[in-house]
Amino acid sequence: MKKADVVILGGMSGISAGISCHRHYPDKKVILIRKEGTVLIPCGIPYIFGTVGGPENNVIPDGLLENNGIELVTDEAVNLDRDKKIVYLKDSEEIEYDKLVFATGSEPMIPPIPGIDKKNVFSVKKEFDYLKKVLQKMNEVKDVVIIGGGFIGVEFADECRKTRDINLTVVEMQSHCLQLAMDDEYCDEAKSVLEETGVKVITRDRVVSLNGGDAVESVKLASGKELKADLVILGIGCVPNSKLAEKAGLELGFRKGIKVDRFMRSYTDPNIFACGDCCTKESFFDGKPSGVMLASVATSEARIAGANLFSPVHHNCGVISVFATIINGRAFGVAGLTEREARNNGMEIVVGRAEAPDTHPGGMPQSVQLKVKLIFAKDTGTILGGAVSGGKSTGEMVNVLSACILHRMKANDIVMFQMGTHPALTPSPIAYPIVNAACAAVLPLKDCE
Amino acid sequence: MKKADVVILGGMSGISAGISCHRHYPDKKVILIRKEGTVLIPCGIPYIFGTVGGPENNVIPDGLLENNGIELVTDEAVNLDRDKKIVYLKDSEEIEYDKLVFATGSEPMIPPIPGIDKKNVFSVKKEFDYLKKVLQKMNEVKDVVIIGGGFIGVEFADECRKTRDINLTVVEMQSHCLQLAMDDEYCDEAKSVLEETGVKVITRDRVVSLNGGDAVESVKLASGKELKADLVILGIGCVPNSKLAEKAGLELGFRKGIKVDRFMRSYTDPNIFACGDCCTKESFFDGKPSGVMLASVATSEARIAGANLFSPVHHNCGVISVFATIINGRAFGVAGLTEREARNNGMEIVVGRAEAPDTHPGGMPQSVQLKVKLIFAKDTGTILGGAVSGGKSTGEMVNVLSACILHRMKANDIVMFQMGTHPALTPSPIAYPIVNAACAAVLPLKDCE
Repeated sequence: MKKADVVILGGMSGISAGISCHRHYPDKKVILIRKEGTVLIPCGIPYIFGTVGGPENNVIPDGLLENNGIELVTDEAVNLDRDKKIVYLKDSEEIEYDKLVFATGSEPMIPPIPGIDKKNVFSVKKEFDYLKKVLQKMNEVKDVVIIGGGFIGVEFADECRKTRDINLTVVEMQSHCLQLAMDDEYCDEAKSVLEETGVKVITRDRVVSLNGGDAVESVKLASGKELKADLVILGIGCVPNSKLAEKAGLELGFRKGIKVDRFMRSYTDPNIFACGDCCTKESFFDGKPSGVMLASVATSEARIAGANLFSPVHHNCGVISVFATIINGRAFGVAGLTEREARNNGMEIVVGRAEAPDTHPGGMPQSVQLKVKLIFAKDTGTILGGAVSGGKSTGEMVNVLSACILHRMKANDIVMFQMGTHPALTPSPIAYPIVNAACAAVLPLKDCE
Repeated sequence: MKKADVVILGGMSGISAGISCHRHYPDKKVILIRKEGTVLIPCGIPYIFGTVGGPENNVIPDGLLENNGIELVTDEAVNLDRDKKIVYLKDSEEIEYDKLVFATGSEPMIPPIPGIDKKNVFSVKKEFDYLKKVLQKMNEVKDVVIIGGGFIGVEFADECRKTRDINLTVVEMQSHCLQLAMDDEYCDEAKSVLEETGVKVITRDRVVSLNGGDAVESVKLASGKELKADLVILGIGCVPNSKLAEKAGLELGFRKGIKVDRFMRSYTDPNIFACGDCCTKESFFDGKPSGVMLASVATSEARIAGANLFSPVHHNCGVISVFATIINGRAFGVAGLTEREARNNGMEIVVGRAEAPDTHPGGMPQSVQLKVKLIFAKDTGTILGGAVSGGKSTGEMVNVLSACILHRMKANDIVMFQMGTHPALTPSPIAYPIVNAACAAVLPLKDCE
């Protein structure tokens, strides 16, 4: 029987966990088991349909495994004996482990809508061959409906339109696209830049059936509207892939994620860890279960899990939730809580806003107006979250906010923040909008004291 | 006699101090006195000579003053009576103050080189009409020598070449351009991208005389080399503009800056504050005097000074020094200490390095390779500094590092950093180089324990 000190099950976060394990415990033998021949970059999947041109250009290089002494076994783990500490595989020899890591990710949620199993109705599986097929089909059709106006839905819409003359409609139940991720004013801005590309956005409506013969031909909405559709993409979210864990008797938690403690160790078995979309998460802010599924969270958890395998000392402080996207050239990002989330959570808050061109003077070529909004706790002045829209620097600006949130900076700390500035790279030092949004919150916060 | 609660002397950081004062003490009357009709954005000055086209496109709008209820008096402050709390002006009526703020900035250093007063030898004064004249001359000449290979020198060289067919040589005494700002490997990279534009770079050599008739015709170096020159730019640094403060009996410190405490209050007079290039600074790391002159530091100090005027409670934690520049399209940035500075300071350190494309997958259009280097204290694992070279996101990436340094994050904290990532905006979550450079330092740090 094959043996390894550490066996990892899964995709992208599995690679991160393996690298982290190798860094902390270079003498341990690590095997990574996955059924996919190649692992796709999850957040790159919408870009397969436009900018990068195909799944073959969106692959995580296996060199990462070789360079870190990780053995790859391409097979499916089908069973687990926790007492004997053995993983059974579909096609090859079983493997004995000392520590096991679940990094099995998530699967698209398939809503129980009549007609959902018709031909040319696709979900967003992280599978090379499946996506290749979707891409091929996308190049043959005329009328596409995307169900769900979250990140995946909106990014798919933007990318698919970019390179094709097709009719594309996004259908979202909530009153705004991206509503779970951003505050209304940013959702409105995102919707309007998306509509400029020709994409139709229908909100406050719900798909009740997919109609047609063998293949889908139209999408019926609760309002009575009927949309022509020869291809449908489901982008309504994902659920943890925890089937094998459940079968092995591991306790599941929120939304059936594998229940883990702050060391990323399963509640049930101290020799089994989990990281990424397949396991439970807690909010950094209130410690309550979080349903966030982000590659950045998954890799952070994977680094923690890998480091803790033989000595659990690294703490997971909980999910801040930091992300960015770009729609029709306009970038949007959020770190931490939105205003809506904070208020729904009963928090009394103060909001600070600022705008500035992302280069200075504003007349520099390709200057883009940045909009920043920061959320502070009324009582303590601690930053709870922030949103940015603007140009390409938006992606790293939310990372500045992430560092501020992680270290519970107060409005007054951010007022005195020592940012570097440069005419071609950032807003002017006098107008730097993260600082100025904090400045705008200082007096209202003072009035609350 | 005119009266104000607060009188501010000076340019850009004066505006920031005024805005901060207005935010904290909205009922106080504020007057800003400066001799310049318009205030230039200091870091934008090199870009006047290329990208932005002229000083008129690099001006801080006076609307900022009006919007914040600040009265502008355009005149020169020539004397100060600290007992009577009166500022005397050159042309207009004197003004009585309750609190006074020096924000008088800095002036170019003029080295005592024979021939330095010849025609067509220019320093980089922050004056509209002067720079207009330099620009006009720059458009008429053929052979330009820039003395000093710091930021100003290098940015001038890049910008002046961009739009003109001229011979341009940078002369630097040190063994590298930008040596005071960056480690050798980044200096080498900067030099090579600058040379690709056709600029000649001479290091380890010194100007001994400027020769010619009335106007400069050549530059003689210590090595014996003689460079043809019909225009010379001096970019060897600046000195605090503290003449009036000295005349008024305020104590001066390091390099003749106005000596201030941690509240930005002058040592000598509790009713007088100072901020920006004109006053002394301490290093965030060891508390020793710092000679750093950056617009970002100046505005941070200005916000502190303005907030402290009538109740000094906001602390200046000292200068981290965060900056970025871009040379021939390649951006460079540093936050905190360089490896050289840390070692020269006797610190035992561990260095972590990582590289990654700044978008992911690497095949995204306009993808640029990012190089990150982080410096950690060996004993504690605390981050002391970091350097980045790459594309436009470099400017905000050093701000991520600034937030990490300001909060004394340790390598292990950065390993678990929750960064947001997106294909078009950032490196991949698995390769995010700030995190991976911290990862690379973890084991060496462990070995030191």
